[in-house]
Amino acid sequence: MISAMLRKVREMLVFLFISVFSKATGIKTLARATVPTDNAAAIFCLSWRLAVETNNARAWRTVPAQCFRYVENYMIGGQYDQDLNLIVEEILSYVNEIVLSEDGMDAWILDVDDTCISNVFYYKGKRYGCDPFDSVSFKSWVNKGECPAIPGVLNLFIKLVESGFKVFLVTGRNEETLGQVTIENLHNQGFIGYERLIMRVNIHASESVQMFNLSLRHNMKHNMKHPECKHHQLRI
Amino acid sequence: MISAMLRKVREMLVFLFISVFSKATGIKTLARATVPTDNAAAIFCLSWRLAVETNNARAWRTVPAQCFRYVENYMIGGQYDQDLNLIVEEILSYVNEIVLSEDGMDAWILDVDDTCISNVFYYKGKRYGCDPFDSVSFKSWVNKGECPAIPGVLNLFIKLVESGFKVFLVTGRNEETLGQVTIENLHNQGFIGYERLIMRVNIHASESVQMFNLSLRHNMKHNMKHPECKHHQLRI
Repeated sequence: MISAMLRKVREMLVFLFISVFSKATGIKTLARATVPTDNAAAIFCLSWRLAVETNNARAWRTVPAQCFRYVENYMIGGQYDQDLNLIVEEILSYVNEIVLSEDGMDAWILDVDDTCISNVFYYKGKRYGCDPFDSVSFKSWVNKGECPAIPGVLNLFIKLVESGFKVFLVTGRNEETLGQVTIENLHNQGFIGYERLIMRVNIHASESVQMFNLSLRHNMKHNMKHPECKHHQLRI
Repeated sequence: MISAMLRKVREMLVFLFISVFSKATGIKTLARATVPTDNAAAIFCLSWRLAVETNNARAWRTVPAQCFRYVENYMIGGQYDQDLNLIVEEILSYVNEIVLSEDGMDAWILDVDDTCISNVFYYKGKRYGCDPFDSVSFKSWVNKGECPAIPGVLNLFIKLVESGFKVFLVTGRNEETLGQVTIENLHNQGFIGYERLIMRVNIHASESVQMFNLSLRHNMKHNMKHPECKHHQLRI
């Protein structure tokens, strides 16, 4: 049924960057590095990172302790930026091939945390994921409104807006408590001109971020049936 | 519908190692490395490899020329083996949690090329994917029957058979022309005791390997409705 629907809406493509880049927790992308500090650890950490990135690693909570320096180096040593930039280049080459219709219904979806704006400074305080995710201190960090833009994604965002896409930003952040600071943070980092910021509201408060994402995807698929969004690629 | 079906057959899990490891062409997994021969190339090749492994890179035919040494080092320098072994450990920890029913319907599916047995020597002659895939010389290589077992996967295979799983091997290789040599190659590398080797027959000859895989998945889902296979995890 899904494949039939996807055929029908062949031109409907949404980039759920939740999947392309990282989950809202951001931990997922913290497991890479280039220059090893210790060769045995580097070999293990590179394998572990690959397993995580390809979703072959089973449920895990923290980055393995021996990968701390490795992940630190990955995040701030340049490889993470390079990885992002290469994907953004791929995306831009795709964007450049698209001829937008004139009905204003071409849409694009971007995740917020660790896609548009970075929480790397929060994770630095958590030994780059070697310490468990801490929702209290994460909220405290978010409330500062100091998440820096991820430059490659900001460039993509600007290109999309200029090209005429309606850009939707989605986040598991709670609208009631973190709405204003998120809007301001995005604005002061240059994310200006998006169509709508879709946040978690209290009705989703008891849901995990993963469940919220699933609900969101369900609603998006439903919305495809009426002409709100047109340009989609669902990663199901 | 798919998710409803999957809920119904919650215990039906198939590991389509086509997805977990590599495609039948094997090229896909040729893009990794650890010890760079040149730092700029290493940074690029590591990013490119990640993009390929996560399916973010768009259609590509050959490994970038500047990544030849990098991929060579990855494949024969130990990191590829380490990557495979880490995933096999993950799988074994999963296998060890499963309590098999006594109805003999617990099944497992493994891909053949570059999952059970390796084509690394073929790819060595193709500059580890920097030269295009060549079906004539690939068939010539396969006809030698000298593909070595991938040790970690052989261990997994043995564990599965010993545990009572019915193990199905699937491959895009043509049954008429490569059936006998494939059976013998698998046997002489220790793959003994599987339930069935499912190969491409002439009816699929005009299909691409990708289309064959799709047909196979469709048929497997259909087969779930009658009690041939029980232990599945479909990666759709």
